[in-house]
Amino acid sequence: MELLNTHRSIRKYKNTDVDEAVLRQILESGCRASNTGNMQVYSIVVTRSAAFKEKLAPCHFNQPMVKNAPVVLTFCADFNRFNQWCKARNAQPGYNNFLSFQTAAVDAIIAAQNVCIAAEAKGLGICYLGTTLYTADKIIDILHLPKGVVPITTLTLGYPDEHPPQTDRLPLDAIIHQETYTDYTPAHIDQWYHIKENLPENRKFVAENNKETLAQVFTDVRYTKANNEAFSKVLLEVLKKQEML
Amino acid sequence: MELLNTHRSIRKYKNTDVDEAVLRQILESGCRASNTGNMQVYSIVVTRSAAFKEKLAPCHFNQPMVKNAPVVLTFCADFNRFNQWCKARNAQPGYNNFLSFQTAAVDAIIAAQNVCIAAEAKGLGICYLGTTLYTADKIIDILHLPKGVVPITTLTLGYPDEHPPQTDRLPLDAIIHQETYTDYTPAHIDQWYHIKENLPENRKFVAENNKETLAQVFTDVRYTKANNEAFSKVLLEVLKKQEML
Repeated sequence: MELLNTHRSIRKYKNTDVDEAVLRQILESGCRASNTGNMQVYSIVVTRSAAFKEKLAPCHFNQPMVKNAPVVLTFCADFNRFNQWCKARNAQPGYNNFLSFQTAAVDAIIAAQNVCIAAEAKGLGICYLGTTLYTADKIIDILHLPKGVVPITTLTLGYPDEHPPQTDRLPLDAIIHQETYTDYTPAHIDQWYHIKENLPENRKFVAENNKETLAQVFTDVRYTKANNEAFSKVLLEVLKKQEML
Repeated sequence: MELLNTHRSIRKYKNTDVDEAVLRQILESGCRASNTGNMQVYSIVVTRSAAFKEKLAPCHFNQPMVKNAPVVLTFCADFNRFNQWCKARNAQPGYNNFLSFQTAAVDAIIAAQNVCIAAEAKGLGICYLGTTLYTADKIIDILHLPKGVVPITTLTLGYPDEHPPQTDRLPLDAIIHQETYTDYTPAHIDQWYHIKENLPENRKFVAENNKETLAQVFTDVRYTKANNEAFSKVLLEVLKKQEML
């Protein structure tokens, strides 16, 4: 619990490599996670070389942790291995569809989060890169992902060279619903977002971006409709190209 | 690491309730997990009542743990709360698209896996129900999920009343790829699946199902093409109906 409760994303890493045996322990523990029907329909591509970090960096909008982290892990939904197995065993796979993609994506993320916990238990720090979904087409080319394989998320991993403050979270009662979903009224919204909106760092964030509200920083700057729609188009094309839609 | 390495899914629970304070601690720890841009675009619906377990059971193909577990948690991708916040703060949300759905689904699963670890740290057992994606349309009706909200996975939670053996996992080298993806040859497939195929429980499984190979149990019985395609259609319709595609 202590480990979970003190989690923060780490974006600055020491210039210390992650021992191969330690990495294997972390990945082994990660792969003990629950998965669908014990099919394990995911793969993890390990990037340690400067050459491949260099190639991946633009896919993650050149966030510096990609090049600075000793290890970069790309978690992929992967029905390719399972399909190959089926074909080699006189079985006809029927996994080139959206449900199978989503199932494999769930498996990949469960494994990723287990890897995070294992890494933190070993004194490492991690950061998720949500950009993986935005540039899946380019990552597929760089990592040579065959049909049936789609990158879902990326983790950077290394020994922390910073101790950032924990970021805020919404009150638990904003996230949970008892028995059925209770939709939010404007009064609820005020109640649940009040603390977040009044944090000094968030007020500063609004001012720096010349916006009226924190929500506008998200809609107008960080996660815009135009970008979301463009990335959606690419991602749907990726699913078709990888034969998962 | 010990906790991760000894994980097994628990399907039989003691007739002991989960204290509300313990559940809140677990959910609080779960929600400390990484999430996209600290938007926390997920919600958790808590089911404790017999009436709602009864309603949800058929959505999970009447697997007995739904009714027997003291707590059932449905993790949902949720842009509704965020959209409501944006609208209340003079910001125009642009999150009714596939990229935003996938982002929110990732957040929901990361939180779910963190909740699993927290629950296991408190001595509870968990089981994921992959059926959530198959019957999302029905779960939306039962839990009254508004537009912008899609159920992604479900956990049953309770004190273990069984200690099942750990299920096998593929060797780590079957799952990881160094620098780029190395596609599988028939020799690799034999190498990585050999142990799994020769486990007594899997040989028994093949015999019970009157199949030639373990792969056929998956393709012909457990996860058939016809079912996957039917569920894919429902899930894509759900995304459209919930305005996430």
